[in-house]
Amino acid sequence: GKGAILLVNCDRDNPTAEEEDNKDTKLTSIQDLEDMSRMILTTQGPDEVFANYQLTLHISKADDDKVGVFYSQRKEQIYYKHILGSGKISYHVERNLGQVQTVFYVEGLKFPDINFSGLVTFHTSLLEPARKGVPETSLFTDSLVFRVAPWIMTPNTLQPVSVYVCSVDDNKDFVEHIRKLATKAGCNLIICPEEENRKDRWIQDEMEFGYTQAPHKTFPVVFDSPRNRGLNDFPFKKILGPDFGYVKRERSSKKSATTLDSFGNLEVSPPVTAKSKEYPLGRILIGASFPRNNSPMSQLVKDFLKSQVVQSPIELYTDWLFVGHVDEILSFVPAPDQKGFRLLLASPRACFKLLKEKEKEGYGKAKMPEGIEFQEDGRQPRSISEIIADGFLKKWNEYCQKCIDWNRNILKEELGLAEEDIIEIPQLFHPFLELPRSFVPQVITASAEAYFPDMVNMIVLGKHLGIPKPFGPIIDGQCCLEKEVRRLLEPLGLSCNFIDDYGTYYLKFGDVHCGTNVRRKPFSFKWWNMRP
Amino acid sequence: GKGAILLVNCDRDNPTAEEEDNKDTKLTSIQDLEDMSRMILTTQGPDEVFANYQLTLHISKADDDKVGVFYSQRKEQIYYKHILGSGKISYHVERNLGQVQTVFYVEGLKFPDINFSGLVTFHTSLLEPARKGVPETSLFTDSLVFRVAPWIMTPNTLQPVSVYVCSVDDNKDFVEHIRKLATKAGCNLIICPEEENRKDRWIQDEMEFGYTQAPHKTFPVVFDSPRNRGLNDFPFKKILGPDFGYVKRERSSKKSATTLDSFGNLEVSPPVTAKSKEYPLGRILIGASFPRNNSPMSQLVKDFLKSQVVQSPIELYTDWLFVGHVDEILSFVPAPDQKGFRLLLASPRACFKLLKEKEKEGYGKAKMPEGIEFQEDGRQPRSISEIIADGFLKKWNEYCQKCIDWNRNILKEELGLAEEDIIEIPQLFHPFLELPRSFVPQVITASAEAYFPDMVNMIVLGKHLGIPKPFGPIIDGQCCLEKEVRRLLEPLGLSCNFIDDYGTYYLKFGDVHCGTNVRRKPFSFKWWNMRP
Repeated sequence: GKGAILLVNCDRDNPTAEEEDNKDTKLTSIQDLEDMSRMILTTQGPDEVFANYQLTLHISKADDDKVGVFYSQRKEQIYYKHILGSGKISYHVERNLGQVQTVFYVEGLKFPDINFSGLVTFHTSLLEPARKGVPETSLFTDSLVFRVAPWIMTPNTLQPVSVYVCSVDDNKDFVEHIRKLATKAGCNLIICPEEENRKDRWIQDEMEFGYTQAPHKTFPVVFDSPRNRGLNDFPFKKILGPDFGYVKRERSSKKSATTLDSFGNLEVSPPVTAKSKEYPLGRILIGASFPRNNSPMSQLVKDFLKSQVVQSPIELYTDWLFVGHVDEILSFVPAPDQKGFRLLLASPRACFKLLKEKEKEGYGKAKMPEGIEFQEDGRQPRSISEIIADGFLKKWNEYCQKCIDWNRNILKEELGLAEEDIIEIPQLFHPFLELPRSFVPQVITASAEAYFPDMVNMIVLGKHLGIPKPFGPIIDGQCCLEKEVRRLLEPLGLSCNFIDDYGTYYLKFGDVHCGTNVRRKPFSFKWWNMRP
Repeated sequence: GKGAILLVNCDRDNPTAEEEDNKDTKLTSIQDLEDMSRMILTTQGPDEVFANYQLTLHISKADDDKVGVFYSQRKEQIYYKHILGSGKISYHVERNLGQVQTVFYVEGLKFPDINFSGLVTFHTSLLEPARKGVPETSLFTDSLVFRVAPWIMTPNTLQPVSVYVCSVDDNKDFVEHIRKLATKAGCNLIICPEEENRKDRWIQDEMEFGYTQAPHKTFPVVFDSPRNRGLNDFPFKKILGPDFGYVKRERSSKKSATTLDSFGNLEVSPPVTAKSKEYPLGRILIGASFPRNNSPMSQLVKDFLKSQVVQSPIELYTDWLFVGHVDEILSFVPAPDQKGFRLLLASPRACFKLLKEKEKEGYGKAKMPEGIEFQEDGRQPRSISEIIADGFLKKWNEYCQKCIDWNRNILKEELGLAEEDIIEIPQLFHPFLELPRSFVPQVITASAEAYFPDMVNMIVLGKHLGIPKPFGPIIDGQCCLEKEVRRLLEPLGLSCNFIDDYGTYYLKFGDVHCGTNVRRKPFSFKWWNMRP
């Protein structure tokens, strides 16, 4: 039927331990025990049978790094002995006279992965002891299969629990904005201080929050990216803890991590049905490198994600963007109707349409960015008419729209979306040219960068949205881009909060989503109820 | 000592013939005969010797496609017999009694090339006829070596003879400007009509004029590029003729020609001395593709150029430019002093310096392009201050300057130039992005394109320069870019004529030099006097 489920015991219940609980063969607390599944061996029969024959619990050699089994002979005793796994593959069960049930505690050591389906089989055998010239033989064997629970990501439509943000030298106002938004949404705010973030503000990129679940227990698990910049130690040192698990995959090769390894490039859709298949936990979205020489996301990370099975990943084309993350072009927001959400897509098409309307209405001279003191790199405010008339910008954005439409088609097909499930959020991109610092003849490649703060790169906390403030043209005292986004999203019951991230994030090639992270409640749907 | 010289008989003296004179084994006119070198066989000695022994003229099998030899028994006879070459490798000389001299006429069939040093050896042997059991044996052999004359390019410092330009549907004014300039310079103007150019206006790219020279004869030779666009037939059908030779090299592989195959990408310096070596005929300059996937200039063309030896080619790095031709970044003009010329280099550095001076002087609001009605692609006039403040344009031009400086160093070293031999001509470039027409995920590359008509892309007719009109900011009634160029060049006795090529050439990615071609007088220096 449903089978039995194991959790990877990847939290750290003992605060003085140096590693996750699945990395050692100790069991020192009731909390640790609670992460384990009980395996009960029932031995009904005449006591003589068990006196003459040896009762053995055993696993295959291949599974000895996948599970750990603990056993305590006396019920009242706190000391549990490690009897299987990590080098031990069989255990001679000591049965007291008349004992019917023997209880073992089982933990998973590894999440499903490319070489591990997640299934572990236990065998119990009644052995006739070896005699002269005759080896030990099995009289009877019974088997039990466990499935190791997957790591599950949480889409924007799930209720937020905690919001994370880094405190760096210049972002006090930004942190305050996020604090207010978190309060509105009833979330906890966790600020990662500078000594822990080491001036790395991109907390979205360092880790992805998810959870793992069995019928007896559920706990959050942070997936640590192979990005390894300033925030590298934060997930392990500050998030891993009692009932908070941790998992990491490094890069496949010895090559250093690339931008596509960042977890701003790892998102998950809300529940969908596509091509007659239900995905009640949504589908993972990762941005891929089709043609650039750039290494793609670590194969080890991709293998891990795919092996969880329940959120079958989709690869999108994001390498046309300078940074190249999926969160630069899409987001999901909850909605009260239809499929329960909308897909938001960054849209040059929608932006040019809006600007042309505003020009027609006589506002061609309104400039953007408007209201920004901070100017870097000689960027100059330009009028709506100038932007519309810039043939270079127009052609470039037509190209960007083609890149987005390429992904739009994949998303419609793989997530089973209809046109009415998609909202186009006005956005322009301009080309970023990767010029060599020390000159040698080489090819210069051009990639896309948001022309103004990238509005789809938002934080979604229930119905409260934290949207990068676009600093668009002011018309009748109001930014016409903000007005348009409100027009599109407020009818869904969403509250649009525009947050100034211009100097602190946008000019450093990221926006609100890149600079925050959210832990959410698990799905109410249980993964083991998913149809194959 | 000096040895004997052969000309490649690559003109076509017979107007009704279908090919160049070196492609057949006929000799039908005195003109054709005049292209040939005389080879005199002196046979002094007792007649009996020549009666008993056979006098033979012969060449090696390897040389039979390099030379042709004609012979007429009677001096007054117009009929000359083809006796050696094209399959014939030996000829039994018929000597009349008492005849001391036998005159042969020799033509070269091929220019020096990768598998042909240019040297051809003739042998004359006195043979003892074969007798029973004894094969023909040689009593005595004498040899003579000819060198085939190279194809020689003519730099801007040589006197112009004819100017070529295409007539297309929109360039009547341009043709008139070129006519006036040619008249000033005392040159002939040859207009290639539309039925011959088939709407291909880039006559610089289709062919390169040079010459070939022997002590007895000199004639121009057009080198036809493997570019093969609308003008493809023009050099063969309209330029090849009596005393006007023709040579062509195709691409090495079956790949179609690339932009680097165009002969706007093939220039030659005036005479120079570099690293203690004299180059009295200058050195050839070709633009190469270092890193782009773009195929470089045809290897067959490069091999041909190198094999001429006398103008030892230099490869420059031009692939950072969208079109990628050397004539986009450099030109040579005659000068009365120093080395007799100046190298002109396109210079973003000089341009920004000039614009900043003008801004300081209070002209920051002056715009460019100024005076242009024709606008395409939404290009908008921008003020000096806007251009200076554009950080994107600044960074791009710093990169372009690095590319130019890379070439500047090569040119200084390989042409033995000092700083005072170089004049920097103000020029800006902007990036051109090669966007896919039909969308598939792919890398977008960025290359450089002149931001205003490219002034070094000029035609040089003696001291009369035809310079692309830059349409720069007007200050005190005068274009400040034109004024600056006059300031730089007029002290050399040069006359600057700014020609409007904006809509007709510049917006189509070329300028005056690309749209014209010049045949010049040969060097007075004879190539055979060059020191090895």
